[in-house]
Amino acid sequence: MSSQPIITATCSAPVNIAVIKYWGKRDTKLILPTNDSLSVTLDQDHLRSVTTARADISFQKGDRLWLNGVEEEIGTEGRLRTCIEECRKVRKGMEAKDGSLAKISGLPLHICSENNFPTAAGLASSASGFAALVATLAALYGLKPTLNSSDLSKFARQGSGSACRSLFGGFVAWQSGTEASGDDSLAIEVAPREHWPTLQALICVVSDAKKGTPSTAGMQRTVATSPLLQHRIKDVVPARMEAMRKAIKDHDFDSFADLTMADSNNFHACALDTAPPIFYMNDVSRAIVQLVEEFNRASVAEGKGKRIAYTYDAGPNAVLYAEEKEMKTILAVIRHYFPNTDFDDTFNLLGAGANASHRGAQEAVPLPTNEVPKGFNENVIPVQEPGAVRRLIHTRVGDGPRVLHTWGDGKGTAGDVKESLLGEDGIPLRLQRAKRA
Amino acid sequence: MSSQPIITATCSAPVNIAVIKYWGKRDTKLILPTNDSLSVTLDQDHLRSVTTARADISFQKGDRLWLNGVEEEIGTEGRLRTCIEECRKVRKGMEAKDGSLAKISGLPLHICSENNFPTAAGLASSASGFAALVATLAALYGLKPTLNSSDLSKFARQGSGSACRSLFGGFVAWQSGTEASGDDSLAIEVAPREHWPTLQALICVVSDAKKGTPSTAGMQRTVATSPLLQHRIKDVVPARMEAMRKAIKDHDFDSFADLTMADSNNFHACALDTAPPIFYMNDVSRAIVQLVEEFNRASVAEGKGKRIAYTYDAGPNAVLYAEEKEMKTILAVIRHYFPNTDFDDTFNLLGAGANASHRGAQEAVPLPTNEVPKGFNENVIPVQEPGAVRRLIHTRVGDGPRVLHTWGDGKGTAGDVKESLLGEDGIPLRLQRAKRA
Repeated sequence: MSSQPIITATCSAPVNIAVIKYWGKRDTKLILPTNDSLSVTLDQDHLRSVTTARADISFQKGDRLWLNGVEEEIGTEGRLRTCIEECRKVRKGMEAKDGSLAKISGLPLHICSENNFPTAAGLASSASGFAALVATLAALYGLKPTLNSSDLSKFARQGSGSACRSLFGGFVAWQSGTEASGDDSLAIEVAPREHWPTLQALICVVSDAKKGTPSTAGMQRTVATSPLLQHRIKDVVPARMEAMRKAIKDHDFDSFADLTMADSNNFHACALDTAPPIFYMNDVSRAIVQLVEEFNRASVAEGKGKRIAYTYDAGPNAVLYAEEKEMKTILAVIRHYFPNTDFDDTFNLLGAGANASHRGAQEAVPLPTNEVPKGFNENVIPVQEPGAVRRLIHTRVGDGPRVLHTWGDGKGTAGDVKESLLGEDGIPLRLQRAKRA
Repeated sequence: MSSQPIITATCSAPVNIAVIKYWGKRDTKLILPTNDSLSVTLDQDHLRSVTTARADISFQKGDRLWLNGVEEEIGTEGRLRTCIEECRKVRKGMEAKDGSLAKISGLPLHICSENNFPTAAGLASSASGFAALVATLAALYGLKPTLNSSDLSKFARQGSGSACRSLFGGFVAWQSGTEASGDDSLAIEVAPREHWPTLQALICVVSDAKKGTPSTAGMQRTVATSPLLQHRIKDVVPARMEAMRKAIKDHDFDSFADLTMADSNNFHACALDTAPPIFYMNDVSRAIVQLVEEFNRASVAEGKGKRIAYTYDAGPNAVLYAEEKEMKTILAVIRHYFPNTDFDDTFNLLGAGANASHRGAQEAVPLPTNEVPKGFNENVIPVQEPGAVRRLIHTRVGDGPRVLHTWGDGKGTAGDVKESLLGEDGIPLRLQRAKRA
């Protein structure tokens, strides 16, 4: 038994999907963006990264990190190291100022991180992953209230740019800032989830044989070669950020949809304007766009305004935002044109019970002709090949990082120890289970 | 027999494919563009529109026009009427000035126009078609030398914007001009075909189930909604026009390719930035881009510079430009990755005789591994579905409109009467043949 305090903390952090996109860095080391961006945080009840960190003098090999059960090299520099050392440095300063604080900043760390969504879901896990890392170290080191979430977002930002936005729930802006140090490049809350709790998302996971250009390399190629990107940065995004804040403030879905779709297309236009060009959307992505545009066109013609917004990150998957009351119809429309998709029915839209699992080959789903807007052109796209949309994930706007469990430092236990990813020996439980099996 | 002079003229005009794209009108009636553009004229030996016009007092139903054997309504306004009346007006003025000229400007016209390439080739026929119409009326009315080809290009421009560029061979600029009248919006020759006679083109006709947005409607939607287009117009195109003129002047294929590909992507980026977005390229188009980019990358790495340039108009078809000496390799590469394509071997690259026809299902074409650049990544794209590229058309830079046949007005016959599309009765021969059959 060690005589040192043993400290462990476990936090979860959410995925966020930008509606005003981040594309381009002005500083690649500090990860300072060329423009502001704005995102919706998705619900951790459905998609999350969880991280457990433990500080222990007995960890003789120094700092170690496991990601989804595989040990990763932290190294002496790089993004993981930066995030860890930024947090450690603050703790060290606190310990120097306050002699009553346990001296844990110098102890080796074991860190274990997992995502509850498979890589196969096609969702970037770096945002939720780095947010969970920073939230966990903040809990471990007791960095709050010395630092607030915006302060912590600067640490997460240096792990993965968009991770800074996962430090908040609801609607979040990443202010690009102007300082060379990056000190003003941070996330702020635009509105909490409670402001617009009926906003939901349907993630359409699109099959794609080909791995696209990694976003880190892609965005710098765009910065270097696209003449249009400069215009996006200077003239397009600033006005859209203002308009988007207003749309969210007013619960104005029509404007929210307009801006979200326009900015997704604007970002992909800049990717296409890159030399060599970068393509993320494929023919299935484009079919979803055409379907949504036709649905909205007919809805606007009926006087009901736009009812669906699409957005695409650096890949072929669509994220559709809509009001809760629209989702049943939208789901049916998507399942009609994109047959044989996997769907876990989070909110029991299909009436077979919450979280009922609908897998692969299914009966053809009829178009809900009574629910689609009058004048909707059913032939806007043909019914696609089975499995073109591989999986649907239904979720909603969510909250920021959660502290799931802490233990030690004289404070005893809080939260649910079952959430911890590390065993008492500081080794991932997942690996111990695998060994026993 | 009529006592009036009977006049008939037949001309052909070429297709042109822009390397700096036209997209957007500042005046939709006069067809004045938002920016300059620049094109390569393709060889009429392979792709052409032919028009015969005849003026005859006996045509009691007035002006009539047949397009590919189908009579079209000329109407009292619209593009066809504008082109015809512009030419007629000039003739009328000439007749008023010079009493010795036959008074034919007031006679009814029969006009017959045909393309030697099927609509299925996916090539826009409006440019060559309107250029052939104007060239034919200019021959009929003897408008040269009163008017030069740039003057005539202004008439063709009012039929279809890019038609103005088909009034010249070789390398042609369409100057957008600044006057509200459109009087300075015309085509000029940048260089004749003889300047760079080894420049060739391989048109890859891509199968596409879906008809895209018509370009006339599409470009005005881009003008109305794309923030990026304004940047393209003001800052991107002017510099590229200059650089492209220089590349052509210097026979600098590397720069020519760079500019051609960048401008194609820039145009499609603006189409994507439109609300709702416009997609012309599909997954097969994108596969061709990726293949060409990889070929060029490996070639540049070898110190040989870029050797292929792609460009895409308002559709999924690729036009590949390359030097004559590269075409055999390029053809083999395309046929390897895009199996089962139709190919008429214009220049006998495959050794089965000039114009030998290679149809549909074929033996797999091996990659010419000794001819592709060292370090070329064979797995850049998978071998595509058979028929993904439906047809290949091999051609080269060509000349401007040709006068094929004229007859009457006291000048007797010139050229080959077999080229005339109208019979002695002023009815399309094609219809007469159909009737006899």
